[in-house]
Parts: sequence; C-alpha cells; structure tokens
Amino acid sequence: MISFFLADIDGMERHFRRNVINGIGGCKSANLIGSIDSQGRENLGLFSSIFHLGASPALLGFQMRPVHEGRHTYHNILDTGHFTVNGVSMAMHKRAHLCSAPYAREMSEFELCGFRPIYRKDMMAPFVAESPIQIGCKLEEDLEIALNGCRIIIGRILQVHLEESILLDDGCVDLHRADIAAIAGLNAYHPIGAAESQPYPAKPLSKNQP
Amino acid sequence: MISFFLADIDGMERHFRRNVINGIGGCKSANLIGSIDSQGRENLGLFSSIFHLGASPALLGFQMRPVHEGRHTYHNILDTGHFTVNGVSMAMHKRAHLCSAPYAREMSEFELCGFRPIYRKDMMAPFVAESPIQIGCKLEEDLEIALNGCRIIIGRILQVHLEESILLDDGCVDLHRADIAAIAGLNAYHPIGAAESQPYPAKPLSKNQP
Repeated sequence: MISFFLADIDGMERHFRRNVINGIGGCKSANLIGSIDSQGRENLGLFSSIFHLGASPALLGFQMRPVHEGRHTYHNILDTGHFTVNGVSMAMHKRAHLCSAPYAREMSEFELCGFRPIYRKDMMAPFVAESPIQIGCKLEEDLEIALNGCRIIIGRILQVHLEESILLDDGCVDLHRADIAAIAGLNAYHPIGAAESQPYPAKPLSKNQP
Repeated sequence: MISFFLADIDGMERHFRRNVINGIGGCKSANLIGSIDSQGRENLGLFSSIFHLGASPALLGFQMRPVHEGRHTYHNILDTGHFTVNGVSMAMHKRAHLCSAPYAREMSEFELCGFRPIYRKDMMAPFVAESPIQIGCKLEEDLEIALNGCRIIIGRILQVHLEESILLDDGCVDLHRADIAAIAGLNAYHPIGAAESQPYPAKPLSKNQP
C-alpha cells in the first residue's frame, strides 16, 4: 500500500491532489442536469454526485461547487424551481463530457453537444431525449456547506421516464442493459458489466459464508 | 419509454417504488464505513452514497438514514469523531453486502463478515485490510434533512491508503484495476470495465464532434 497522511495530502501538487481526492470515493454516477431560466435559455451540466435520499417521498440530492455568476444550472433551478436528471450512457459520454466546460449564458449545451431537449407536462425544465433514464425534479432544499461554500441541492422526484427494456419486474433498473457509465475521478468513464445481485434485505449469516 | 408521474410514483407498491427510486440515479459507490465506540466495539456498515465535496480541504460526504438506537455507525462517529471509508472490490462484495444487515451492538461485522481490522496512527477507527482503497476521516459536519430526517455526514480526509498499482502518475485512481464495484439500487453489484478517459478540463468543441 502507498499511504498519504495529512501533511502529504496538504503538500500534494494541486492537480495531483484533485485527482486523488476525486478518485478514491469509488464509482460515481454520470448524469446531465437539464434546466432553463425564465427567459427560456436552456442549460445542461454534467454532475457526478447524485445520491439517493429516500423513496417516500422520493428525493435525490447532488453536490454543487460554490456559486458564482457562471453557475447557470444553479440560477436556473432557483428561477423555475425545476430541473431534470438524465442518465449518461457510454454511447453519450463523449458528448456529455463536453457539458462540463463553461459556456456563455446564451449558448445551449443541448445544441453545442448535440442533444435533443424534450419538454413534458408539469415540468418546466428540458429532458435529454437521448438518455435512457430521465427524472424530473422540483427544488426542495438548498444547503450551503460552511466549510467550503459548496451546496447540496435536494430535489423531489416528480416524474420518471425509462426505456422499457431496462425496468425489471420488481422495479429494479438494469444499469448494464441501459449502458450507464460509471465515472471515476473527473474524466474517466467506465462501462459496467452485468450485475451480481445479492439477496435483499441482507440477513446475518455465519462468518464462514463467502 | 415508460413514464411514471407523481400519482404513479405515490401509488407504487412500496418495494417496487424503493427499487425504482434507488435505481434511477445511476452507478453508486460501494464503500464500507469502519468505526468504533469509546468502549472499543467495532462496526462496519455498507454505504452507497459517498460523494466528493472538495479537494482542498479534502472532504467527502455521505447520506445516512434517520438515526435510531441501532445506527451504530452514527453513534460511533459522534463518540470518537473518526471513521474510515473502505472501497469494496468485486472480490469482497458478497461479504460486504452482509454488513448491510442489522447486528447486535456487541457483534463486530469485521468478524461476522470475515474482514480484518487494521489500526493506523492518528486514526481511532479501524480500516478494512482487504480493501484496495482506505480513507481515514474525521467528522466535520452532521446535517439533518428536514424533509425526511435523513442525515448528511461530512468528513475531512486525514489519510489515504491505496494499493500502489492503482495510483496513476497523475494522481488518478484506476478503479477498474482495483476491481471496485458499482452498486445499482440496493443489491446489484456491477464490475466495471476499463475507462475511456476524456480530456480535462473539457473545452467547448463544435457541435459536430462525437
């Protein structure tokens, strides 16, 4: 093993530290967040921090770096109260990665990156037509992390649209069949293999089991 | 596409809804959180919501369901201020999944699930020896989500231990080589393939690029 203690971490070259700290947490989800402002300017941003926060009510959260003028996703969500979360497949990942670059307010990442916006009833924000998993949310909470100014945005899930072939009989979603990408660090997109499923809920077993 | 609107989601059978809502966010990290209380009772819990929260200072967060007496991880973290985050490889996933079951306070999941605790300097909580990625943290913030009582725990990363072969020259961590699992929903563990890496930072390209 190679070990880094606090002084080592603090002393790392900035880009090296960014890569280490972004990479160690494991696989991250790849999602495009769709939004629009009250003037009709669309936006897509790539986020890798979507986490589950409850099924009833159905909630999700994600992390956002400190807010400045250029954070179009944030300002749009405050403006309309709505946003969409769209799963990124391996087939989409090169174009989706382009949405992590900053663009001028007037430019739509849908057009720049080659995605097609879809609008659906009861949701102001645009969905990504190419995405196999599309979630429509309304803003529920906007928390600021005092330590570094990052925000945690919490959304109520109002609607879900899925490719029929990826929804299993018990409600589970087959991310392998959907070809959903797992992100490592900032820019590595991994395809995922077929799942090995374990029983739910897990029951205590003897310590001699595998 | 198959669509579920709010009334459909609210009307879903409970387990079906749980599976849908847990599955749609995409790949989740698989990590074992190690902790110990002031009486020396060890605990391991499986968490799939670790997210990156900044590299300087180095922070991570994770979601925890509402706290009750049985949340040993939570009480231990408050007790000592320390916890470890240990990546779950496919080779470990069956045993790691057992750590998601509830056990009595006196029982150590290390022993029950067949993992070996390691203690390292400046960190009270035990690491998982079998894990290729081991992170030592101290508690920085403990936020309650008003909507459903879930908590978001934020930790400062104090130390990182990695298998040498998975740390690349630029600090990126090769999760494929580490055989790290991606979790879908509650109980599906996916192996990940080799990464396709994109340039960082992404630069705006013409819309005709792939």
